[in-house]
Amino acid sequence: MTRYVYDFIEGGREMAGLLGGKGANLAEMTRLGLPVPPGFTVSTDACRAYLADKAVPDGLFDEVNAHLREVEVRLGRRLGDPAEPLLLAVRSGGRYSMPGMMETILDIGLNDATVTGLARISGDERFAWDSYRRLIQMFGRTVHGVPAEEFDRELDALRATAGPDGPTAEQLHGLVETYKKVFADRVGHEFPQAPHEQLYLAIRAVFESWNAARAVLYRRREHISDDLGTAVNVMAMVFGNLGPDSGTGVAFTRDPATGAPGVYGDYLSDAQGEDVVAGVRNTVGLDELSRLDPASYRRLTGIMTTLERHYRDLCDVEFTIERGRLWMLQTRVGKRTAAAAFVIAAQLADEGLISWDEALTRVSGAQLAQLMFPTFDPQATPEPLATGVGASPGAAAGRVVFDNAAATAADGPVILVRRETNPDDLPGMIAAAGILTARGGKTSHAAVVARGMGRTCVCGVEALQIDPERGEFRVGDTTVRAGDLVSIDGTTGRIYLGEVPVRPSPVTRYLAGELAPETDRLVSAVDRLLRHADSVRRLGVRANADTPADATRARALGADGVGLCRTEHMFLGARRALVERLILADGLDEVHAALAELLPLQREDFVAILAEMDGLPVTIRLLDPPLHEFLPPLPELAARVARAEALGQHPGRDAVLLAAVRRMQESNPMLGLRGVRLGLVVPGLFAMQVRAVAEAAARRVAEGGDPRPEIMVPLVVDVHELAAVRAEVADVLATVPGAPPIPVGTMVETPRAALTAGAIAGEAEFFSLGTNDLTQTTWAFSRDDGEGSFLGDYLERGIVEASPFETVDVAGVGRLVRLAVAEGRAARPGLTVGVCGEHGGDPESVEFFAEAGLDYVSCSPYRVPIARLAAGRAAVAPDCVGSDAR
Amino acid sequence: MTRYVYDFIEGGREMAGLLGGKGANLAEMTRLGLPVPPGFTVSTDACRAYLADKAVPDGLFDEVNAHLREVEVRLGRRLGDPAEPLLLAVRSGGRYSMPGMMETILDIGLNDATVTGLARISGDERFAWDSYRRLIQMFGRTVHGVPAEEFDRELDALRATAGPDGPTAEQLHGLVETYKKVFADRVGHEFPQAPHEQLYLAIRAVFESWNAARAVLYRRREHISDDLGTAVNVMAMVFGNLGPDSGTGVAFTRDPATGAPGVYGDYLSDAQGEDVVAGVRNTVGLDELSRLDPASYRRLTGIMTTLERHYRDLCDVEFTIERGRLWMLQTRVGKRTAAAAFVIAAQLADEGLISWDEALTRVSGAQLAQLMFPTFDPQATPEPLATGVGASPGAAAGRVVFDNAAATAADGPVILVRRETNPDDLPGMIAAAGILTARGGKTSHAAVVARGMGRTCVCGVEALQIDPERGEFRVGDTTVRAGDLVSIDGTTGRIYLGEVPVRPSPVTRYLAGELAPETDRLVSAVDRLLRHADSVRRLGVRANADTPADATRARALGADGVGLCRTEHMFLGARRALVERLILADGLDEVHAALAELLPLQREDFVAILAEMDGLPVTIRLLDPPLHEFLPPLPELAARVARAEALGQHPGRDAVLLAAVRRMQESNPMLGLRGVRLGLVVPGLFAMQVRAVAEAAARRVAEGGDPRPEIMVPLVVDVHELAAVRAEVADVLATVPGAPPIPVGTMVETPRAALTAGAIAGEAEFFSLGTNDLTQTTWAFSRDDGEGSFLGDYLERGIVEASPFETVDVAGVGRLVRLAVAEGRAARPGLTVGVCGEHGGDPESVEFFAEAGLDYVSCSPYRVPIARLAAGRAAVAPDCVGSDAR
Repeated sequence: MTRYVYDFIEGGREMAGLLGGKGANLAEMTRLGLPVPPGFTVSTDACRAYLADKAVPDGLFDEVNAHLREVEVRLGRRLGDPAEPLLLAVRSGGRYSMPGMMETILDIGLNDATVTGLARISGDERFAWDSYRRLIQMFGRTVHGVPAEEFDRELDALRATAGPDGPTAEQLHGLVETYKKVFADRVGHEFPQAPHEQLYLAIRAVFESWNAARAVLYRRREHISDDLGTAVNVMAMVFGNLGPDSGTGVAFTRDPATGAPGVYGDYLSDAQGEDVVAGVRNTVGLDELSRLDPASYRRLTGIMTTLERHYRDLCDVEFTIERGRLWMLQTRVGKRTAAAAFVIAAQLADEGLISWDEALTRVSGAQLAQLMFPTFDPQATPEPLATGVGASPGAAAGRVVFDNAAATAADGPVILVRRETNPDDLPGMIAAAGILTARGGKTSHAAVVARGMGRTCVCGVEALQIDPERGEFRVGDTTVRAGDLVSIDGTTGRIYLGEVPVRPSPVTRYLAGELAPETDRLVSAVDRLLRHADSVRRLGVRANADTPADATRARALGADGVGLCRTEHMFLGARRALVERLILADGLDEVHAALAELLPLQREDFVAILAEMDGLPVTIRLLDPPLHEFLPPLPELAARVARAEALGQHPGRDAVLLAAVRRMQESNPMLGLRGVRLGLVVPGLFAMQVRAVAEAAARRVAEGGDPRPEIMVPLVVDVHELAAVRAEVADVLATVPGAPPIPVGTMVETPRAALTAGAIAGEAEFFSLGTNDLTQTTWAFSRDDGEGSFLGDYLERGIVEASPFETVDVAGVGRLVRLAVAEGRAARPGLTVGVCGEHGGDPESVEFFAEAGLDYVSCSPYRVPIARLAAGRAAVAPDCVGSDAR
Repeated sequence: MTRYVYDFIEGGREMAGLLGGKGANLAEMTRLGLPVPPGFTVSTDACRAYLADKAVPDGLFDEVNAHLREVEVRLGRRLGDPAEPLLLAVRSGGRYSMPGMMETILDIGLNDATVTGLARISGDERFAWDSYRRLIQMFGRTVHGVPAEEFDRELDALRATAGPDGPTAEQLHGLVETYKKVFADRVGHEFPQAPHEQLYLAIRAVFESWNAARAVLYRRREHISDDLGTAVNVMAMVFGNLGPDSGTGVAFTRDPATGAPGVYGDYLSDAQGEDVVAGVRNTVGLDELSRLDPASYRRLTGIMTTLERHYRDLCDVEFTIERGRLWMLQTRVGKRTAAAAFVIAAQLADEGLISWDEALTRVSGAQLAQLMFPTFDPQATPEPLATGVGASPGAAAGRVVFDNAAATAADGPVILVRRETNPDDLPGMIAAAGILTARGGKTSHAAVVARGMGRTCVCGVEALQIDPERGEFRVGDTTVRAGDLVSIDGTTGRIYLGEVPVRPSPVTRYLAGELAPETDRLVSAVDRLLRHADSVRRLGVRANADTPADATRARALGADGVGLCRTEHMFLGARRALVERLILADGLDEVHAALAELLPLQREDFVAILAEMDGLPVTIRLLDPPLHEFLPPLPELAARVARAEALGQHPGRDAVLLAAVRRMQESNPMLGLRGVRLGLVVPGLFAMQVRAVAEAAARRVAEGGDPRPEIMVPLVVDVHELAAVRAEVADVLATVPGAPPIPVGTMVETPRAALTAGAIAGEAEFFSLGTNDLTQTTWAFSRDDGEGSFLGDYLERGIVEASPFETVDVAGVGRLVRLAVAEGRAARPGLTVGVCGEHGGDPESVEFFAEAGLDYVSCSPYRVPIARLAAGRAAVAPDCVGSDAR
């Protein structure tokens, strides 16, 4: 027969699956000899059996009774004994905590008889009745769903009539009778007087709460299995509310906000834990406890040291002091801010408690990213005007604008203010320093897009009354007009009037070389952890860089080369006219003439980038986008020509352009004439680019440099495409004297390229996985279109866990990645495989790529340190890939 | 040591890989005791060794000499013997014949000495000198690349001066001397007099010709491996040009055009095979031979019977009669028209020579498709005006147009005439009944697009002089103006002035039930082969049908149900206004109101289709396309609004529409808000459709019918999408009393659906592979865009073998198909998997799907018979999948 119940002295932290996190840690503390009230845990097995059969499993309550008797023997009190009653606390405790679960019922065992026993042994009749009314209220709410207000109303009425010392025992007795009536009215039967029945019902209620709507929704969203179930912890009550020599508190082994060493916490005397939560009185620091009760304080700090050495990490605890005796009610590895995570990891490594490898697993690239955002200067921060949802971190200040036109026309930084955003607002969002909306949460269009683009965003500021027609918004009495300055904090969700000074993050200043690592505890920790990551990582980190300035920044931030140099960005600005000539060319001669003019310009682009990256690889992608992207949009041209014609004017060049754009229009440009297709269809285009690369490299060699260009062919779906381009490349390279060898490889950015990677590797000297386009095609999901139109919905309904453009989709795209790596390397042993999609800068994705055996990732320069850290973490703990740092 | 040379008596037809097709069949005839001139074959191994080492393999010529001696002994003549010289014919012979390969050198062994021996033993001096000049010319051309004109010029000059009986022996002797001079001038050395050297050089020349540019190009295009190599056949010469009792001919065991029984062929007396090819004189029928030389005729027909019984198929032969003695020079399984293929297969099965299963492998779905096109009435066909390349079969007549505007504006059928086409011409090509171009071949843009759209097309009619500005084209003296009637035959490539009456194909009339199978030999063969296919096939064949009329047609053509009923077509016409209301709806109430009006209309659609398909499954796809497809295009609206505004008019409803279209505009609608995404985002849309299906089915049940609807969810990428829709479907179905059980399944039309098929099968009661969209996403290739813009180029350069939209891409898309089938069925044993892309009607693809284990394919109604045949063929000969019928 399955065993369902474990005494605290029987378990340990390795049993978290069976006992839940809380139960396992209570057992661990018991095993360490720390003062934990006696008790036992009903296992998750019991919960699963209950949920499967919709009935309490056979023998469960017999087991509960047996363990209960042991507790009674150990304490010398019995449940339901009117003279010396044992009281119990029942708490849920799954593997993960989640909203909607039944949390706690205290004081189980109280009834009309035992309440007097409690009054006698505590010597405090008021406390006894107060405990009883708490039980009825908690039991009513959590077991039977009676709204808390039904009880609170009565309590408030009593408090209003009570004297300055609060209600008397008699008044509280009266309140208990009222509560019992409320209970019976709402539930349909009397409050159960039998203590064992109370216990059984509480255990069942915990089981039932596993399927509470909010819990189910949360699990779906977080992709936690519905099969885990929760454990139930049953513990003898201890009381922090038995007078001034009692109390309750929480404590951390270090400061969870900054990581500063030394025990840190809050204490509230003469109170239970729920009073702390309810904020009945203000808590005091632990220093105060050291004055009030030095013995308990010493005992507590000793225990904290024991726990931290035992868990080798920051721990937090809940404790209660009952008439001078310290009891530990809970411990766990404590949550912490990103800054504290870095500082604590480095400190623990310094103290020799953990290795530097392990320290690396205690921080994450996502945390490093968080530390790189600017913040408002705390000295200069005024009262916030309003608060919403911090949807995309950062601190931005700028002038208020209400539409795209104003956003794109503005000189300085602007904050785009909208009721909510939709894809029409993209140009404005791109132009803005920050985005502020009145509606929508973390998964709204504004939030998703802003995070995707690294824009600061505050959403759902319900207090905003926006009137775009009048060009203003109001918050209460305050009116803010277009052009006024506001500041928004995307981390806290606060918005401020005026321009609050922004302070660059010290971590960013350090990364930019402006701050020495010794100047700051945090920066020093980041510096040492990053350096350790570099020393252990096997995954290279290159940067996406299209300009010499990008290349310089990338090198400073530790990039091992350029993994993606997009050449299309080189055809904008003044050169657009040349591209237009190329497109409108009538005959091969005009095409060649246009290309001949572009050649020297391209060559100079490459010379500069190769010089910046001297000695490091620079992967240059041949022209990728459809040519019509260089022309004005069709609706705009159509309208211009129609307007001119209606007015009897000659539309001139617009008519020529319109004809060209109409001819080249594509219904799905993403899937049209671009990449290698363009290179094979437009004669001489790729040859010109290859010649520019080769001549630039030859020049660098002549100048004594060490240029290492690589040529990358985009959008290949079939090995024959690559073979055709390679033949052309070889012809060109043969005519450029002094150029170094230049490898030719391919993007793997279509499902077919991945599915035929073995064949393609026959012609490719390297692979670069373009996971942006690979995601778009694998998901049939145009990033430009779908992210705004349905992704929000999908995230909200838990259909997807994360945007596949933020974190690589392991089940679909990841499967193609693994396949391409395996089959590419089988065909060409030692084939270099990198990633140049934006996933290259996402820590979770980087860890996946490391595990998949890639050689490098490439990301935007400012994400290079994040990728370096993630790559280091993946190297030391490949099994924690995909899981969060603590 | 590898053996390189095989005497004809050593080989057989099973050795075609080693001996090439020609050599293997010569050996087979020798083995059968048929009169084949003695000889031997140099194997493809020798060719491969030569090509690998760029040198004749050691010992090859020793082997050749040894075999040559055997031939000499058998015939009692020796190569180079001035008295009784043996002469040899050298012919290439690979596994496949291909253009550009060296074909034949005759009369090897002639030189200044042996020519007199030949004159003596033949008793014909003129013949001897003529043979010598032929050798010099053929040798010069094929071994050394001397242009044929260089020799022909001299021959023509001689003929001009010769008497009515042709040149005398002396004149021909003089011509030989001239030819030798031409040879020496062009080649740089004298014509080789040593007969063995002639032979060795000829064998090397055959090897070299394997890498001739045209052959390489052909192999690349046909995806024939460059590693096969060719064999070389060396055979004693026999002469058909020794007088009136000699001659040469070709014969077929049945009529290769119609399949009619009885030997059929052409004969030319006193001639060599090359004279037949050159068309020096007109050939006569075999009847004539039976008169001229009854003994040889009887011998020939006896041999033909032997060959057909032996090969169990139509054979063709080349033969020569040398002074009354019949020699067989070649045989092979003969090529035939599509009609003959069906007739012959049925006849051979009737005759018991082959089984009906085997008969099925002798025909293909592609041939059946060809037989379904209309043809010109042969009685009414005039002289053709000109002839080009038959690029897309069919017969079309219509008025000449030269541009899109005229094509789309015309009332009746039109023929679009262009120098060549490009993507700009698409609208015109869609509107036209046929396409006619002056330039380009079978892989030109016009040809590819026309075949893709099933339009008749004749390309590359070089005689056409097109002048679009004047609106006319000329062929010689004939001028054809816009609006004139022309007729084009896409099978033969012929074009005619005026409207030639078109005759529907008898096969199509039979399939439509208008013709009884007994009325026609061809129709009867098709009927019996189709019925046999139905009796053996395991693959179901359903039809794509959106209307009751489609459903009726599909059922008549033998469909096993409807595999794809698209609901979007039901929202066009008058109902478009309701969709507009839905799109422009302000708030949920208006959405529901619009849906409520659509519900009864949808229900009636389904009732009618379910009635037509009573007792058979009807798979109904929920709405798939983006909603903005129901609105006018953006550039059109933008221009309309701009024009109105410029004229100071109020744009009215256009402005409202423009705003909506702008809001809903997508850069890649194919990858945007459509399919299941739309269903999850637009509240009530799918529920309305599901209700309509359920209510329609309930109605049919009440009427005593047997409705079998299935509901199919499009564009799923993740199992959670399907789970959400299924929950909604279940809610709706629960409220419709009397509806039968309705299975809910999913399209697998994105790479991710295939890659996560195991998970998705958990929620899907069936899979339907949407290979159109799956191809678009796997290839990142929008059919609308890429087919016109670069596919023609790709086909022409051999980068792809076929449009992946015509024939399923086995390496990429096919791999996903196999994966989806395997993992879907692993998760849900017995899962039904069908295909509803257009590949379901492509015979080669159907055979792939059968082999991949699918349950059914679905295709357009008129392709149902083709799919039935292909499915039958796949069932009886799974190993011939992907190969053509003969």
